[in-house]
Amino acid sequence: MTAAEGQPLVHRLRARYGECDLQGIVFNAHYLTYFDVSMTELWRAAYGSYRAMLDRGIDIVLAEAQVRFLAPARFDDELALSVAVTHLGETSILTRHEARCGPDVVVDGDLRHVLVDLKTLTKTPIPDWAREGLERFRVTEDEPR
Amino acid sequence: MTAAEGQPLVHRLRARYGECDLQGIVFNAHYLTYFDVSMTELWRAAYGSYRAMLDRGIDIVLAEAQVRFLAPARFDDELALSVAVTHLGETSILTRHEARCGPDVVVDGDLRHVLVDLKTLTKTPIPDWAREGLERFRVTEDEPR
Amino acid sequence: MTAAEGQPLVHRLRARYGECDLQGIVFNAHYLTYFDVSMTELWRAAYGSYRAMLDRGIDIVLAEAQVRFLAPARFDDELALSVAVTHLGETSILTRHEARCGPDVVVDGDLRHVLVDLKTLTKTPIPDWAREGLERFRVTEDEPR
Amino acid sequence: MTAAEGQPLVHRLRARYGECDLQGIVFNAHYLTYFDVSMTELWRAAYGSYRAMLDRGIDIVLAEAQVRFLAPARFDDELALSVAVTHLGETSILTRHEARCGPDVVVDGDLRHVLVDLKTLTKTPIPDWAREGLERFRVTEDEPR
Repeated sequence: MTAAEGQPLVHRLRARYGECDLQGIVFNAHYLTYFDVSMTELWRAAYGSYRAMLDRGIDIVLAEAQVRFLAPARFDDELALSVAVTHLGETSILTRHEARCGPDVVVDGDLRHVLVDLKTLTKTPIPDWAREGLERFRVTEDEPR
Repeated sequence: MTAAEGQPLVHRLRARYGECDLQGIVFNAHYLTYFDVSMTELWRAAYGSYRAMLDRGIDIVLAEAQVRFLAPARFDDELALSVAVTHLGETSILTRHEARCGPDVVVDGDLRHVLVDLKTLTKTPIPDWAREGLERFRVTEDEPR
Repeated sequence: MTAAEGQPLVHRLRARYGECDLQGIVFNAHYLTYFDVSMTELWRAAYGSYRAMLDRGIDIVLAEAQVRFLAPARFDDELALSVAVTHLGETSILTRHEARCGPDVVVDGDLRHVLVDLKTLTKTPIPDWAREGLERFRVTEDEPR
Repeated sequence: MTAAEGQPLVHRLRARYGECDLQGIVFNAHYLTYFDVSMTELWRAAYGSYRAMLDRGIDIVLAEAQVRFLAPARFDDELALSVAVTHLGETSILTRHEARCGPDVVVDGDLRHVLVDLKTLTKTPIPDWAREGLERFRVTEDEPR
């Protein structure tokens, strides 16, 4: 049993004015959007682009999300978004997400996506080329949350 | 030549928490979303639903928007959104929109949509059944803004 | 120890055009917005309004969200959103959310909010008036998910 | 009468998955959000940051927007957003915005913002330091649209 040797993919974005609420902080729902952007960047890094995946007739849908809001991020804060693959099942992909503001994790989350056939939207096994592309971003999770 | 005898269609919605910004007021971009909801309600009232239009192979796209922000609306304010058809061209539909909070118009706007073929996304003439359905909501505009 | 006698609060909303994505279904992040609207309706039913809570110097922040996406909802679908209080702690409120489309639950979720002092944003105990107001919507949870 | 010697500020962003609608194109309302991001970048370039402006007790509100939708942008397209100052009045700032996808302008717009006192939200004259900071991005408009 060898540990996964990949590492998280990190990209950056700034909290937009319209994403901050009355409390002066990023409204909670936008983190799911940020994590979705991370998934798009993951596909780009893993095998060219999300579109390349669509062109091959597969798509992904979000099945489950667990998100913890630890601290607020504010307008114009630059966030570092990281995503790592924590599990590749037959048809499902588990990813671990973190949003950092400076050194602090402000929000983290675990998402479970399912691969589907683009036309029928029914579950479809993760093809080898997708599996290989994602391997670089795979980390070992000792204790699932 | 008689004046149009229709009148605006009015629906209501509440400003959501996540739609309000640091200033405590509805963020400007959301009014275009509100006006889009008004268009959906207009299709429903005019001929069943937006989907009914899609089922007949036509769609609409926004070509131009002019929006004036007169006063702020705040979280949980109930807004009355009105939409009236101000012009029906060969392929274009002009609508006048107002968002009221109590008696006050907080935002108004004029939108120009264009009918397109659902598949080719090229301009297509407004069919008679659509023209007839929209007539009830047509108002005369003496002075275009 | 008697079972809680309250029941969920239900409100309705329609999926907006701009909330649906390329897959033709409501984009995942919007469900957190829908659940937030449910919380606003919960405050209104429990003690007048969210603003009434703010006027009393307290606010709530989302600490954790667990969301399961079971089936898609589509543009113009009317969703029934339900919210029930599953636990009232010293400073935290657990709520169970469901979004139904017709008879089917399309998305459900469990949220944990924390009461904070409006000025310091530090945790503050749930006051009695808030506790009493929420009791009507409290349900017993036999098996936490 | 000398021409303004400034030039537009350009920044880039990618169309997010959740910003694209059923038609597979960026939903119209998001362009107002994109233009708002351009304004944030304009403040950063002109005098440090939007926050620096808030710290000096002034804020801006959008008073009017005119937007033309010329062509669609699609998911994951990288857009070049440009903003130029076309007029500085006593209390108002006019800006010209363009969103380009490759060589093509997909959407352009003219916005009118008004400077307000942060506390009273009433109009306030543009201070000299703001005027000077914005001068670099001022262009001459021969024919207002």
